[in-house]
Amino acid sequence: MKKNYVDSLVTGSDFDDFFLMKSMAVRTGSNQKKYIDMILGDKTGDVSAKKWDASEAEIDELESFGDNAIIKVRASVTEWQGKHQLKVSRFRQAKADDDFDVEEFIRTAPENGSDMYDYIMGEIALIRDEELRRVCTVLMERNREKLMYYPAASKNHHALMSGLLFHMKRMLKMGKKACEVYTNLDPDWVVTGVVIHDMEKINEILSNQWGISPGYSFEGQMLGHIAQGVKMIDRLAQELGIGEEKAVMLEHMILTHHYEPEFGSPKRPMFPEAELLHYLDIFDARLFDMEEAISAVPPGEFSEKVWTLENRRVYKPTFVK
Amino acid sequence: MKKNYVDSLVTGSDFDDFFLMKSMAVRTGSNQKKYIDMILGDKTGDVSAKKWDASEAEIDELESFGDNAIIKVRASVTEWQGKHQLKVSRFRQAKADDDFDVEEFIRTAPENGSDMYDYIMGEIALIRDEELRRVCTVLMERNREKLMYYPAASKNHHALMSGLLFHMKRMLKMGKKACEVYTNLDPDWVVTGVVIHDMEKINEILSNQWGISPGYSFEGQMLGHIAQGVKMIDRLAQELGIGEEKAVMLEHMILTHHYEPEFGSPKRPMFPEAELLHYLDIFDARLFDMEEAISAVPPGEFSEKVWTLENRRVYKPTFVK
Amino acid sequence: MKKNYVDSLVTGSDFDDFFLMKSMAVRTGSNQKKYIDMILGDKTGDVSAKKWDASEAEIDELESFGDNAIIKVRASVTEWQGKHQLKVSRFRQAKADDDFDVEEFIRTAPENGSDMYDYIMGEIALIRDEELRRVCTVLMERNREKLMYYPAASKNHHALMSGLLFHMKRMLKMGKKACEVYTNLDPDWVVTGVVIHDMEKINEILSNQWGISPGYSFEGQMLGHIAQGVKMIDRLAQELGIGEEKAVMLEHMILTHHYEPEFGSPKRPMFPEAELLHYLDIFDARLFDMEEAISAVPPGEFSEKVWTLENRRVYKPTFVK
Amino acid sequence: MKKNYVDSLVTGSDFDDFFLMKSMAVRTGSNQKKYIDMILGDKTGDVSAKKWDASEAEIDELESFGDNAIIKVRASVTEWQGKHQLKVSRFRQAKADDDFDVEEFIRTAPENGSDMYDYIMGEIALIRDEELRRVCTVLMERNREKLMYYPAASKNHHALMSGLLFHMKRMLKMGKKACEVYTNLDPDWVVTGVVIHDMEKINEILSNQWGISPGYSFEGQMLGHIAQGVKMIDRLAQELGIGEEKAVMLEHMILTHHYEPEFGSPKRPMFPEAELLHYLDIFDARLFDMEEAISAVPPGEFSEKVWTLENRRVYKPTFVK
Amino acid sequence: MKKNYVDSLVTGSDFDDFFLMKSMAVRTGSNQKKYIDMILGDKTGDVSAKKWDASEAEIDELESFGDNAIIKVRASVTEWQGKHQLKVSRFRQAKADDDFDVEEFIRTAPENGSDMYDYIMGEIALIRDEELRRVCTVLMERNREKLMYYPAASKNHHALMSGLLFHMKRMLKMGKKACEVYTNLDPDWVVTGVVIHDMEKINEILSNQWGISPGYSFEGQMLGHIAQGVKMIDRLAQELGIGEEKAVMLEHMILTHHYEPEFGSPKRPMFPEAELLHYLDIFDARLFDMEEAISAVPPGEFSEKVWTLENRRVYKPTFVK
Amino acid sequence: MKKNYVDSLVTGSDFDDFFLMKSMAVRTGSNQKKYIDMILGDKTGDVSAKKWDASEAEIDELESFGDNAIIKVRASVTEWQGKHQLKVSRFRQAKADDDFDVEEFIRTAPENGSDMYDYIMGEIALIRDEELRRVCTVLMERNREKLMYYPAASKNHHALMSGLLFHMKRMLKMGKKACEVYTNLDPDWVVTGVVIHDMEKINEILSNQWGISPGYSFEGQMLGHIAQGVKMIDRLAQELGIGEEKAVMLEHMILTHHYEPEFGSPKRPMFPEAELLHYLDIFDARLFDMEEAISAVPPGEFSEKVWTLENRRVYKPTFVK
Repeated sequence: MKKNYVDSLVTGSDFDDFFLMKSMAVRTGSNQKKYIDMILGDKTGDVSAKKWDASEAEIDELESFGDNAIIKVRASVTEWQGKHQLKVSRFRQAKADDDFDVEEFIRTAPENGSDMYDYIMGEIALIRDEELRRVCTVLMERNREKLMYYPAASKNHHALMSGLLFHMKRMLKMGKKACEVYTNLDPDWVVTGVVIHDMEKINEILSNQWGISPGYSFEGQMLGHIAQGVKMIDRLAQELGIGEEKAVMLEHMILTHHYEPEFGSPKRPMFPEAELLHYLDIFDARLFDMEEAISAVPPGEFSEKVWTLENRRVYKPTFVK
Repeated sequence: MKKNYVDSLVTGSDFDDFFLMKSMAVRTGSNQKKYIDMILGDKTGDVSAKKWDASEAEIDELESFGDNAIIKVRASVTEWQGKHQLKVSRFRQAKADDDFDVEEFIRTAPENGSDMYDYIMGEIALIRDEELRRVCTVLMERNREKLMYYPAASKNHHALMSGLLFHMKRMLKMGKKACEVYTNLDPDWVVTGVVIHDMEKINEILSNQWGISPGYSFEGQMLGHIAQGVKMIDRLAQELGIGEEKAVMLEHMILTHHYEPEFGSPKRPMFPEAELLHYLDIFDARLFDMEEAISAVPPGEFSEKVWTLENRRVYKPTFVK
Repeated sequence: MKKNYVDSLVTGSDFDDFFLMKSMAVRTGSNQKKYIDMILGDKTGDVSAKKWDASEAEIDELESFGDNAIIKVRASVTEWQGKHQLKVSRFRQAKADDDFDVEEFIRTAPENGSDMYDYIMGEIALIRDEELRRVCTVLMERNREKLMYYPAASKNHHALMSGLLFHMKRMLKMGKKACEVYTNLDPDWVVTGVVIHDMEKINEILSNQWGISPGYSFEGQMLGHIAQGVKMIDRLAQELGIGEEKAVMLEHMILTHHYEPEFGSPKRPMFPEAELLHYLDIFDARLFDMEEAISAVPPGEFSEKVWTLENRRVYKPTFVK
Repeated sequence: MKKNYVDSLVTGSDFDDFFLMKSMAVRTGSNQKKYIDMILGDKTGDVSAKKWDASEAEIDELESFGDNAIIKVRASVTEWQGKHQLKVSRFRQAKADDDFDVEEFIRTAPENGSDMYDYIMGEIALIRDEELRRVCTVLMERNREKLMYYPAASKNHHALMSGLLFHMKRMLKMGKKACEVYTNLDPDWVVTGVVIHDMEKINEILSNQWGISPGYSFEGQMLGHIAQGVKMIDRLAQELGIGEEKAVMLEHMILTHHYEPEFGSPKRPMFPEAELLHYLDIFDARLFDMEEAISAVPPGEFSEKVWTLENRRVYKPTFVK
Repeated sequence: MKKNYVDSLVTGSDFDDFFLMKSMAVRTGSNQKKYIDMILGDKTGDVSAKKWDASEAEIDELESFGDNAIIKVRASVTEWQGKHQLKVSRFRQAKADDDFDVEEFIRTAPENGSDMYDYIMGEIALIRDEELRRVCTVLMERNREKLMYYPAASKNHHALMSGLLFHMKRMLKMGKKACEVYTNLDPDWVVTGVVIHDMEKINEILSNQWGISPGYSFEGQMLGHIAQGVKMIDRLAQELGIGEEKAVMLEHMILTHHYEPEFGSPKRPMFPEAELLHYLDIFDARLFDMEEAISAVPPGEFSEKVWTLENRRVYKPTFVK
Repeated sequence: MKKNYVDSLVTGSDFDDFFLMKSMAVRTGSNQKKYIDMILGDKTGDVSAKKWDASEAEIDELESFGDNAIIKVRASVTEWQGKHQLKVSRFRQAKADDDFDVEEFIRTAPENGSDMYDYIMGEIALIRDEELRRVCTVLMERNREKLMYYPAASKNHHALMSGLLFHMKRMLKMGKKACEVYTNLDPDWVVTGVVIHDMEKINEILSNQWGISPGYSFEGQMLGHIAQGVKMIDRLAQELGIGEEKAVMLEHMILTHHYEPEFGSPKRPMFPEAELLHYLDIFDARLFDMEEAISAVPPGEFSEKVWTLENRRVYKPTFVK
C-alpha cells in the first residue's frame, strides 16, 4: 500500500513507493550525460523527479510504459530552489498484483461508475414517452464503456474520473425534484435533456482510462460538443425513426444548454424544459467548484481566487458542520 | 356576476357590467364640452371608454373613487379606428354586496395569500438555527399585511396580486428539494435566503391593494431593494442580537442575489447557499414568464417575442398535455 | 402593361391597374358596414387601399386569392392624413395572359435565376477534388427548384427574389479572384464553402414563389441555418461516403462563417479558406446594403441611416458616374 | 540616520543600517541547514536578504518582531542572477531612540495627518445644515485614530500612509471650488459627500500603523465599502435622528459614487452633488496615478504602462518646470 | 411684447402674436384644396398650426421667409385629438422694429455672447506660454462671429444659442480652479485645452443664427470634430511655427477628450492636463443636463428619464432653495 | 556562408559564424568580474551568449557596433537549465565583403522591395483621376527610401523587413480583383485607399534598416497612424490643391479603415470603396498570421494558439499540397 504522498515528503528520507508518471523527457546535463526528467504525481499533488545518468535501456523502458503509467520508484527526497525533488535510483512499472488503489493517484468521482450508470438507467426506464426512452437507452448503452471513466471536462469542473456520469446523475436528481415543484414541466423531457446534453463530450475531449484528458479530439477542436451533439441526435433520430418535432426539440436542448452566445449557444432555450436544463447544468458546475474550493479551507476563512468562478473567493463559515 | 369581457365585446351591443377603472382624464371635445376619457379593464384586457358631455357632478364623483376603483357601467360598444370603444351612459362605484369576484379584474397568484403565508411560516418553523428562525419569523409577521397582496414586480414577472408570496413559495419548495440532492447545502440558510431576498420590494415598489403598482417609492428609486435589504438586515440583526458573521452573510445573500453587476449585484455569491439563491430566483422568474408566454398559444406554435426573455419566442409542442 | 406606380400616384385620378396584394383584413366601419382594408404594393412602395361596403362575396373572393396575389383594381386616389389612399371599386385576380411583368411588383436579383444557377454549376464542374465536387453538385441539383426564387434573407440584405443565388454567385466570383492573389488558398475549398454556407436558408426561412418571406420555419426558429447546415453536411457526407476530415472541415466552414459568437458562430475559422469564406459573406452583404442605400440618393448627399449598417449613412460623391 | 538605500546598493560593500522587514520565511539549504529568507525594503524599493545557517534562537527572535517591523542589519551586498542580495550577519529590532524617520521606509502622504484632519474639520464646521454637520463631525471624530494612518486603497492609488485623509482633503478642496463655478451646487452636500464616501474603507481594508494593507476584512470581502457605507449612514441617521430624505440621499451618494455597475455602483447619481462626488473621486485617483507614473521619468519620455490607467503610458514634456 | 405662449394656450381664444416658424409644408386637404401645415414654437414648446385654403401667394410668401423665421400670426386656438392646434387667418414676417425679444422663441445661454467671449479672451491673455497664447487668440478671433451664436451640440446638452461659448466659459473657470488645488497642473495647458477642444464643432455641425442646428456638415459627417480639430491644429501650428512637441500635445488633447473609444477617442489622455480636460468636459455636460431636467420639477419629485443621462431620473430635494 | 543556425546547435560543438546581435548588457559575475550577456539571433530563433571575463576594450568595441549589428563570433555550445548557450571567445563586426546574406538573420518579405515598389507604382500610373494619381505618386516617391525596409507593424502581422510594401501589394492586387466583381466600385479610389491607408506607419513606428522595430515614435504614441494619416492627407491636399470633397473622402478612408472604435476608428466607412479597404486590410493581416501559424505545423495537426487570431489554433489538413 502507498505510504509516501507528495504533500508530505521529508527532505533527506528514502523510500520505495508508487506514483503516476504524468510526463517524462530526456535531457542532457552539464556533465554531457543524459538524464530523465519526470513529473510524478498522486492525488495530493505533483513532484519533479530525476533519474541521473540514465542508460539507453532505462530510457527505452520508461518510454515503453506510455503516458500516465503507474510506476514504482526507489527514491530519496532532495530540495531544489525551495521545492522537493525526487532523486530516483530504480523504477519499474506497476503490476496487476501490486498492492495499491488507483484512487491514491487520481481524482475520482465520489460514487462508483457502475452504480451511477445503473441509477441513470433506472430513471430512463421511467420515461413514459417511448421515443425519448429509446434515445436515452441507446445512447447510454453504446457509450457505456467510456462513461465508466470519462471526466466531464478536460480541466476545471468535474475533471475527475467518472466525472461525466457524476455530473449527469446530480443534474438528473435535481431535475426530477424540479418537476415536483414546477408541475408543468414534463419529466420525460427533463431526464432526456440531462442524458443527451453532454454525451458528445466523449467525442469532443480525449481521455485515458484514468479520466485524465490530454486535450481535444480533431472533431472536438473543429466543432465542439454542442454541434457534435446536434449531429449525433440527427443521426440517431433517423436511425430510430423519431419524428421531426421531437428530434428538433432534442437538438435545440443541446444547442441552447450553454445559454449565452459567448459560451457556445447560438440560441437561447425556447421551451421550459430546455430552460431548466441550462440551470441544472450551470448550478451543478458552480456548486462543484465551490465545494472543491473550500474543501481544504479552515472554517472562518476564504479560499484562494477561483478562476472558473470569475475569480471569486469562497467562504467557509465558522459554524459549518 | 360579470358577463362582458374586454376580449369578447360585440360592436353594437349594450350592457351593464363591472370593470376596473385603470385611469380617467377630463378632456374638452370639438363641441367645446367636457367628456371623461377612461381606460376600463378586466383580466382579459383594456378598452377605451368615453362618458360624453360629462357634468361637473359626474366628474367629481368619478374622481372621488380614486385609482383602480371597480365601477359598474351602462355602456354600448362602438368602434373607432378599428378598435372597440365603450360609450358610457351611467356609472357607479361597485359595492361590497355586488356580485363579482376581484379575480375577474386583476391577475392574481394561483394560490391564496393566507395559504402561501402559512406554508412559508411552516417551513420557517423547521429552521434549526434559532437566530435565522427569528429573523424570518419577525420579517414575515411584520410584513404580513402587505405580503397578502404585494406583487413581486411593478411589471413583468410575477406582477400579480400576491405575486411576491407566490415567488417566495415556489423558490422555497425548490430550495428544499435542492438540499436533498446537494446535501452539503444547509437548508436553514436556503430557507432564510429565500425569505429575506426580496422582502424589501415591499418598500421599493408601490402597490395598491389589488397588487397593481404605480411605480417606485422615493427610497426604491434612490437605493433599490438590494441596498434597502442590506440596511433592513443590519437593523434587524442589531435588534435581535444576531452575531456579525451571520448578519454579514445574510446581507451578502441579498447583495449578491442578482449575480451580475449590470443587474444590481456589486459582488457575486461567495458561499454555496448564496449561489443557490440566485439560481432559485432567476429560474422561478424565467419559468413564470415562459409559462405565461405560452398560456394562450395553440400547440405547435410559438409565442410572440417576450421582452423579459431577451426577445425569445417560446414554443408549445403539439403533444403537450 | 402596368402604368400607375405607388410612388407617383396623383390625388383625384382614377385608373385600372395591377398591384401585389400584400395583406388584407375585414373591418367594420362607423356605419356598421364591413369594408376590406388592403395593403397594395409594387416595386416602388406600398399604399393603403379600401373596398368600402364590401359584400360577403367580395370578401370570400379576395380571401380565396391567398397571400401575395397579384390583382387588378379599379381605383381612385384619395388622401388621408397626408398620405395617398386608394378607394377601390372593382378588383379581380391577375390572369396568366394579362400583360404585366412580375418584376414590376417585387424586387428581384439583377440576373436571371437559371443563368446564375448555370454559372455556379460551371464553377463546380471545375472543382478537382471529386468528393467536394459531388457534395456541391448534389446540393445544387436537389435544391434547384427553390434556389430559383429563394431570397437570401427574410428581410434586409438580399431579401429579393433569387437573392440567394445572387449572393452565392458574387461570393463565388470574388472567392475565385482571391485564390489568384493568395495562391496558398485551395479554390476547391473556397468554391465548396460558398456553395454550402447558406444552403440551409432554404429550410430556415419560408418563402413564396416571389421570394417574399413570411418568416421562419419551425426548424429555422429552433436551430437556425448554421446548425441545420452542419446536420445537412453530416447526412450528405454519410450518404456520399465523404471521409471524416473533409466532412468535419465542411461543417466547420458552415459553423464559423458568421465569425462572432453574438452572430451565431460558436467557433472562429481555423483554416484559411474558412477565414476567407466569412469575409466573402460579410463583404457581399455590406456592399449590397450600401449600394441599395445610395441607389436613390442624389450625388453629393448622404442616405438615411441604414440599420443593417449599424445606422451609418452612406455617401454618394458628386463625381460619381 | 539611514544612509544605505535599496536603489543604490554597491556590490561588495558592507554596512549597518535600518530596513523594513516586509516578509520572512525559514527554508532549508542544499547543505541541509536552515536559513532565513527575507524581503527588506525602504521607500526606494525591496531587496532579497539571507541570514544563512540561522540558529533556532535567531529564527524565534525574528518571528517575534511580527510583520512590517523595522530592523537594523549588518550586511554585505552580493549579486545573484543579476540582482543585488544582502548577506546578513547580524540583526536587531529598531528601538524608539534609534535615529531614523519612518518616512524613509514607507510611502506617506505629502502632508501631515493631523494637519489634514484639522483642515477637513475646519471645512465641516462651515456646513450650514446642522444635521449634515453632525454626521460629518461624528464620523470624523469616531474614526480619528485610524484616519491618521489609513491608506485609501490596499494597493494602487493612494496606497500610502494617511492616504485616505489626503484623498479626502484634495477632493474637498476641489469640491468647494466647483461650488464657486456651479453655483446651483450646495456646498453642504458636496463637503458631506466627500467626508462620507470612502469612510468605510477603514472597515473594508485592513492596515497596520504604517498604512500597509495586508488585504480585506471579512465584512470588506463580503460586502465592500459601498454597502458598508450605506449601513453605516443608516445606523448613524437613526442615532442622530436624521430625517428619511436626507439619510437616503446620503446613502445614495455612497451607493452611486463608483458610477458604473462594473465598478460596484448599482445605480447612477440622481442629483447634481452626487454626480460631482463621482468626478471628484475619479479625477483625484487618476491624477495621483499619473503624477506617480511620471515622477521618475525624465523630461521628454513616457512612463511604463500603468495598469490602473488602463495600461496607458504617461508623458512628461521636455519643457516641464 | 409676446403674451401668448404655447404651454398656456386656451381653447377657443383668439390672438395676434409672434412665433418661430420651425417648419412648413404644403398639403392637399380632403376638399382638394391646398393648406399650409406649420410647426410654430416659442421657448415653452411647439404647436401645430394650419392655414386652410392657402393661396399660391400666401404659400410663396411663407416659403420666402426661410427656415426658422419669426412670424406674427392672427390665430384661434382649436383642439384636435386632445392637443391644441392653431387655425391661422393671417401672418407676416417679424420686422426689426417689432416689439419682441428673441429669447422668447429660442433657448439661449444664460449669459451674453460678447461678455463670455471677452471673459475667455481675458483668460487667454494670462497664458504665459507665448505659443499657446497665440494659438488661442488666433482661434478665438477667427471664429468670433460664429462663436456668438453657435450651440455646443445639434441636440441635447448645450443645444442653445451661444451654448458653445457657455460650455467653454464654465469649463475654463472650473479648470482654473482645478489648477489651484492640483498645483502640478499647468494652467496654460488647461486654458488652451478648453479653448481648442470643441472649436471645430463650428465646422462639424450646421447652425442658423439662432443657434438652431439642422444637422451635420459634409466634413462633420465624414470626420467629426475630433479629427477636424487635429487637422485644424496641424495647419495652425504650421502657420504659427509651433514646435512639434507642443503641436502634437495639443492634437492629443483634442484626440483624447472623449476618453472612450466608443465615444470617438481612439486614445486616452497621456498627460495630466489632457486628463483634466476630459473631466471638465463631461462634468459640465452632465451638470447642464441635470439642471435642465429638474428645472421644471417640483421639490420632492423626480424628473422624467433623461436619455443623455443613461435614462436616469433626477431628483429635486424638498429643501432646495 | 552561414552554416550554424540557432535551431540546430549541438552541445559541445565549436564554430566561427555570423549572428545578429539583438541585445547586449554588461553584468558582474559571482567572481566579481564583468561579463557580456548577449542575445544572438538568426532567422531560426534566438540564443543566449556570454563573453566571460570581458575586458573594457571588448565592452567598448561591442557597444560601438550599435543595436542589431551583424557580428561574427567564435563560440562553443554549452547547455544551461535545459537550453543551449554560447560561450563566446572572440567576436568582430561583419564586414561588407563577408560572405553572408541578410535574410539568414532577419525575417523579410518574400518579394524584393524594389520590385514591389515598382509594381505599386505601375498600378498608380493606371489611376485615371489625376488628383488621386498625384497623391499616390507623391507619397510613394517621398517615402521610397523607408518603404524599402519598413515593416507593417512593430510586432505581429507583417513584422518583417519590407512588410509594409508586401501588405500594400497584396491588398492592391486583391482590391483590383474586387473591382472586376463589384463593378460599381471605382478602382481609382480602391488603389488610392490602399496606398495611403498605412503610409503613416512610417512615422508611427520606429524601425532600423533591417525592419526591426524598437517601438513607437513620440507622435505615434500620442496620435497613432490613423490621426497622423488624416493630418498628412490634409497637408498634401493643400499642397497639391486637391478639392475638399476628395480630400475629406481620403481622410475618411484612413479614419475608418480599422472599422471598430476599439481598434481606433471613431467612424465606420460611409462609401463602398472605404468599406472594401477595411476588408482588404483585415483579410490580408489574418491570412498572413494563419499562414505563418501553420508554416511549421505537420499535416493533420493544429498550430499553437495564436494571440493575434483571438487565440485560435490553425489547422493544416492532411491532404495539403
